[in-house]
Amino acid sequence: MDGVTAPNVVAAVSESRLWDRLMAMARIGGFATPEGDQGVNRPCLSALDREARRLLIGWAEAAGASVSVDPAANLFLRWEGADPSLAPVLTGSHMDSQPQGGRFDGIYGVLAGLEVIEALAASGARPHRPVEVVAWTNEEGGRFAPGCTGSMSFTGFKPMSAFDGIVDADGVRYADALAQHLAEEADLARRPLGYVPHAFIEAHIEQGPRLEAEGQDVAVVTGIQGSRWFTVTVEGRTDHAGTAPLSLRKDAVQDALRAITALNVLMHDPSDVLRFTVGSVTVEPGTSNSVARRVVFTIDLRHPDEGVLRPRGDAIPGVVQAALRTCTARVHERFTAWPADFGPTVPEAVARAAAALGLKAIRLPSGAFHDAQFLAPVCPTGMIFIPCRNGVSHHPGEYAEPAQCANGARVLTEAIIKLAGRP
Amino acid sequence: MDGVTAPNVVAAVSESRLWDRLMAMARIGGFATPEGDQGVNRPCLSALDREARRLLIGWAEAAGASVSVDPAANLFLRWEGADPSLAPVLTGSHMDSQPQGGRFDGIYGVLAGLEVIEALAASGARPHRPVEVVAWTNEEGGRFAPGCTGSMSFTGFKPMSAFDGIVDADGVRYADALAQHLAEEADLARRPLGYVPHAFIEAHIEQGPRLEAEGQDVAVVTGIQGSRWFTVTVEGRTDHAGTAPLSLRKDAVQDALRAITALNVLMHDPSDVLRFTVGSVTVEPGTSNSVARRVVFTIDLRHPDEGVLRPRGDAIPGVVQAALRTCTARVHERFTAWPADFGPTVPEAVARAAAALGLKAIRLPSGAFHDAQFLAPVCPTGMIFIPCRNGVSHHPGEYAEPAQCANGARVLTEAIIKLAGRP
Repeated sequence: MDGVTAPNVVAAVSESRLWDRLMAMARIGGFATPEGDQGVNRPCLSALDREARRLLIGWAEAAGASVSVDPAANLFLRWEGADPSLAPVLTGSHMDSQPQGGRFDGIYGVLAGLEVIEALAASGARPHRPVEVVAWTNEEGGRFAPGCTGSMSFTGFKPMSAFDGIVDADGVRYADALAQHLAEEADLARRPLGYVPHAFIEAHIEQGPRLEAEGQDVAVVTGIQGSRWFTVTVEGRTDHAGTAPLSLRKDAVQDALRAITALNVLMHDPSDVLRFTVGSVTVEPGTSNSVARRVVFTIDLRHPDEGVLRPRGDAIPGVVQAALRTCTARVHERFTAWPADFGPTVPEAVARAAAALGLKAIRLPSGAFHDAQFLAPVCPTGMIFIPCRNGVSHHPGEYAEPAQCANGARVLTEAIIKLAGRP
Repeated sequence: MDGVTAPNVVAAVSESRLWDRLMAMARIGGFATPEGDQGVNRPCLSALDREARRLLIGWAEAAGASVSVDPAANLFLRWEGADPSLAPVLTGSHMDSQPQGGRFDGIYGVLAGLEVIEALAASGARPHRPVEVVAWTNEEGGRFAPGCTGSMSFTGFKPMSAFDGIVDADGVRYADALAQHLAEEADLARRPLGYVPHAFIEAHIEQGPRLEAEGQDVAVVTGIQGSRWFTVTVEGRTDHAGTAPLSLRKDAVQDALRAITALNVLMHDPSDVLRFTVGSVTVEPGTSNSVARRVVFTIDLRHPDEGVLRPRGDAIPGVVQAALRTCTARVHERFTAWPADFGPTVPEAVARAAAALGLKAIRLPSGAFHDAQFLAPVCPTGMIFIPCRNGVSHHPGEYAEPAQCANGARVLTEAIIKLAGRP
């Protein structure tokens, strides 16, 4: 099937089936907000998670896929290839949600993957390579932080045992929740942990506003930007707001303000690719008639290019120090993730698929983390983004239209058929 | 005794007696901190307050003063004048403390006043007018907020009943605490509420660093600066720190920063008299990877000149609005106190007294509130400040040296003798 579109397969992607399944999944852990939004709270390795997985498994088996689970509870739906010995093309995402999450984040990529299998089944197509759909365990980190433990375990980014001791808010250990979960899915076929896919491709809502703002159908995701998180502690001295002359103060609010203003200059990016956020500011003692003794603020810095991310982040301590007038400051880097570049293979396949289907596409890096970040070092990797309303995600107001969801599934199908090859 | 110093009276001021009494008072509600500071927690209208008052009354009666209490529980110690029908010269301060207060704030002014009586008694001097020392009820507002209820009731700034319904942290009403207190002091002579003093003069620690920094002995307080307190609420929109381009954000932290920066320009004062403090900043949702939806910050603006305080404060809403780039803001003025100007009479008496005693003095306005603020509209009013270590107050580390305390009491004595006149 190389070199031409696979119109009969792509035509078998069903907008209504995909939408109905998204809405069915949204009822598992679903809740309504006073504002009328429909949210989802479906923690990983929970009874709700297992209910959702059973629903997925039922659909997959009805379509003719085989189901198995690995030791990290990653769930696989396999559509056999003409040559079962070849490395599969892998697609999928996750089924867990944020505590106040939406109906599309994660689950969309799993159901779009299932739609690929449905389309292959309906059209009787048998690609050269197997196609596997995966639901990664614990992407969100909402119950067990950090997230992406399923994909990190699968790829060997960290040994599975590294996550054993993580506890949820109730004190339940990750290892115990995982063992209980696997016991409850003991009827499913087990597979070993990990393999090297021929390629990995994940469909997801954008979680940002660009596609909608620019009237695009899909994004060809070129990589996942890197992140560096810092905590800056500015130490001054408290004083009476009525008596202490400004010239004698060590006002931590004023010096924090100078530091952030200087950082704004350091982080200036006319191309608007760099992301610089001061999202948390705490002030002590924090009373209106006292000069602040201490201000702690956070920096979230992201950029897809390590050549930008590294020097800008490295410059933060010096810029903060230089900006201070009377206080002292400590800068602590508490998290670092360097950019993941998806390379050409999968993004090109996605771009060609969108073009073949006549859909409008742009190239952009992902601003958020995804499981794909941990597949990128292992195999050719890529992502497809679909628009979401107002860029809202991790919120009950998260929404993508049925036609937008279907477009993404069609691009995914077309790209996977090309990546899996003709028999 | 007009026109010349009263060396025999002033010489009778005792540094050691004053210091011993300060330390004796500091034991009533006193506590030690882990850092080795000696603090005081003596709430108004409490058993500790009454214990301190009884100690004061014992000393005053032994010195020959007559004691009485008014309906607001203000406590008066009277040294009779040659003409008892004349309006007294009134001095004093308060005996209650902040919850984590020091050993000098308030009580120093009461004991310095008692020292005037001691000096008059020891030297056998009888001024023309009566001299009264007052301990005002509830200056701090630490138990019942707002403070200064005793002096406000005395001067008619507000009717006493205006404070009836104030409750403390345990739900006790001010009116009930006052009634209980007066019942427990039923053995003391009662006097009616309020009169017009010939003059009021209050001795106090500076609660600021200037006297110490400039090597001065006392300050001639020219008035109490005015205060305007504002709350500014900046409303933006939360977004994903990794995905939302900066150009599309409504980042409340960034616009709050612009607003405060613009306010710094508005409030610039090369003479360093104006006090501008942003002491509280709260951010929502306040997570490091979310763009801030809302920032609330406070403004504490003070200046002794209404001609400065009024236009600068009035300009705040417009300056904030002009500084915003993407957010909206509301500015709420939640407290206003216009400056109290003490006029010439008492400050000149203080200045002459300091000069006569060879003490170094500067003129400055008070940055903090005092009971004197409510006397100023009623009668010639003034204050004497003595230095306090590092300007620290409202803190167990508050400290003034014995000699500094005595200097203030001597200036107070000299000034009161002049204000009370020769017989």
